[in-house]
Amino acid sequence: MTDTISTDVAIIGAGPVGLFAVFELGLLDMKCHLIDILDKPGGQCAELYPEKPIYDIPAWPVISGQELTDKLMEQIEPFGPTFHYGHMVERLERLPDGGFRVGTDQGLVIEAKVVVIAAGGGSFQPKRPPIGGIEAYEGTSVFYSVRQMEAFRDANLVIVGGGDSALDWTLSLQPIARRVTLIHRRDAFRAAPDSVNKMRALVEAGEMDLVLGQVTDLKGESGQLREITVTDLEKAERVIACDRMLPFFGLTMKLGPVADWGINLHENLIPVDTEKFETSEPGIFAIGDINWYPGKLKLILSGFHEGALMAQAAYRIVYPDKRLVFQYTTSSTSLQKKLGVAG
Amino acid sequence: MTDTISTDVAIIGAGPVGLFAVFELGLLDMKCHLIDILDKPGGQCAELYPEKPIYDIPAWPVISGQELTDKLMEQIEPFGPTFHYGHMVERLERLPDGGFRVGTDQGLVIEAKVVVIAAGGGSFQPKRPPIGGIEAYEGTSVFYSVRQMEAFRDANLVIVGGGDSALDWTLSLQPIARRVTLIHRRDAFRAAPDSVNKMRALVEAGEMDLVLGQVTDLKGESGQLREITVTDLEKAERVIACDRMLPFFGLTMKLGPVADWGINLHENLIPVDTEKFETSEPGIFAIGDINWYPGKLKLILSGFHEGALMAQAAYRIVYPDKRLVFQYTTSSTSLQKKLGVAG
Repeated sequence: MTDTISTDVAIIGAGPVGLFAVFELGLLDMKCHLIDILDKPGGQCAELYPEKPIYDIPAWPVISGQELTDKLMEQIEPFGPTFHYGHMVERLERLPDGGFRVGTDQGLVIEAKVVVIAAGGGSFQPKRPPIGGIEAYEGTSVFYSVRQMEAFRDANLVIVGGGDSALDWTLSLQPIARRVTLIHRRDAFRAAPDSVNKMRALVEAGEMDLVLGQVTDLKGESGQLREITVTDLEKAERVIACDRMLPFFGLTMKLGPVADWGINLHENLIPVDTEKFETSEPGIFAIGDINWYPGKLKLILSGFHEGALMAQAAYRIVYPDKRLVFQYTTSSTSLQKKLGVAG
Repeated sequence: MTDTISTDVAIIGAGPVGLFAVFELGLLDMKCHLIDILDKPGGQCAELYPEKPIYDIPAWPVISGQELTDKLMEQIEPFGPTFHYGHMVERLERLPDGGFRVGTDQGLVIEAKVVVIAAGGGSFQPKRPPIGGIEAYEGTSVFYSVRQMEAFRDANLVIVGGGDSALDWTLSLQPIARRVTLIHRRDAFRAAPDSVNKMRALVEAGEMDLVLGQVTDLKGESGQLREITVTDLEKAERVIACDRMLPFFGLTMKLGPVADWGINLHENLIPVDTEKFETSEPGIFAIGDINWYPGKLKLILSGFHEGALMAQAAYRIVYPDKRLVFQYTTSSTSLQKKLGVAG
């Protein structure tokens, strides 16, 4: 898939700060495309603690990560942002006209006048399980996410983990794989009870296997896995035929390719000024947890402020010939029209 | 009344930004006293547009000024701030130990280690009606607020205006004044319909007068008012005996005594740094609409950010010997205990 999109602003990261940036940019007539490696908006908030209460969002005595995401999505709805989920930005180049070309691992290409990096702690990356030599099989036999289900057809598939990802993929891939074996260290699962029940029914019907224990050895050649060894709590070992493995050990965050974009970094953070939140590269801004300036606190509410000031500077790049008049949503009919609420 | 209070932080202004500062300071174990010239929290939001919708508070697609105030009051409740309403801060002096003494027009004295100016556009001050020579009677016969009702006993009282203040004081003072005349430019009132009905019933019963027109002349001597002239739409003039006048023409905002506190000002704003939001006087911080720095936008959400960074700096003054560890409300049991929500 190759596809080139032209827009005002490309926002890398659809967490709360990236989402609210759409609002501030939208008030100033700038259209946004957002790119996120996750499959939904909300970033860390929605991925790592969707149901955990947050107490320090102003005027929300308590709100969950998912509610916060939902409210922000509702707030930016009038501006019709476009979301590209499941994409990792791999390339960021400056065009001769001063704009930028953003390229993702999925072949998406976005040309934008302004780039906003709102990538939080960086990209989410799957945690690698502690199995010696696993690197040799990554990308050929060992995968940390399912991009195309067909890649698992007729496979001797081992899925490792006890959360929703492990159980959901067990149920989705069981019909097309030759044989699915779910491996978990104990007979208790964090996943939704309904998924667990469905998995147990399949095991009972002899349609798949559930093995308790830990994967302790991998055997194969040239990146092609052949069999794995599972060791249970009593140290008993068992060998299972396996040519595809999907370990779901949770996510960790890495700065990732941001480090290769030619922007100055400081301890894996992007230094910005406090007037425009612009990076060392004019036209590239960084807001939220990924930026750094004297006094910086990694608070969502600070990212909101940074987005508001960034939008003023972005306007001057996107509309170099227009004069910017600062207005309030409470009193400006023109802003209220954009929000679809003018009386 | 003279009373000296000792506390960690004195916050001047109980608008949204002053209120949220209590939250950020409270998370770091600092106690606050707030002083506001209004008789309730919320500042401009609650005074000027309590029912007007605001659209740019993050994660609130729409919220009224009053709702925003109520939510913030709920959020800071765990920290038990003390409010001093109806006080205007007149004096701000540095104590020999480095702390501050704050004095109000009502005789309140607060000694605090840190002062936070969150005074928005300044103090609310009544608008002076366009009547030549009115200044000569202010404070003796002409008043813009009622501090003590007894000052109006047996007076020939003229109240001017059509809003809630005019109608409420008409109804409250009618029983004790000799005669109350309400003057309004037209026979339509912004005040609550119930108050208007009560006023009309008193007029019908001959207990007070309603005169339509504008006050165009004042007569009296040595600050003591004797009579006023009202001119109606047909230019007809009428003279009314009057020794006390209460004009309610709304509020305007003035920087007020802040200008006398020895802090550097820039076009009636207080310049601050963007790391701590501290003024030219160490230990005095300014957050919200009253401060200025490169990029400054007068947005409530920016005031929230400023309060969060200010609190870190205030901590180092209030607890010079303690080490500050940055924590999140979502994950810190110690912060959750302070909020009264620990499991």
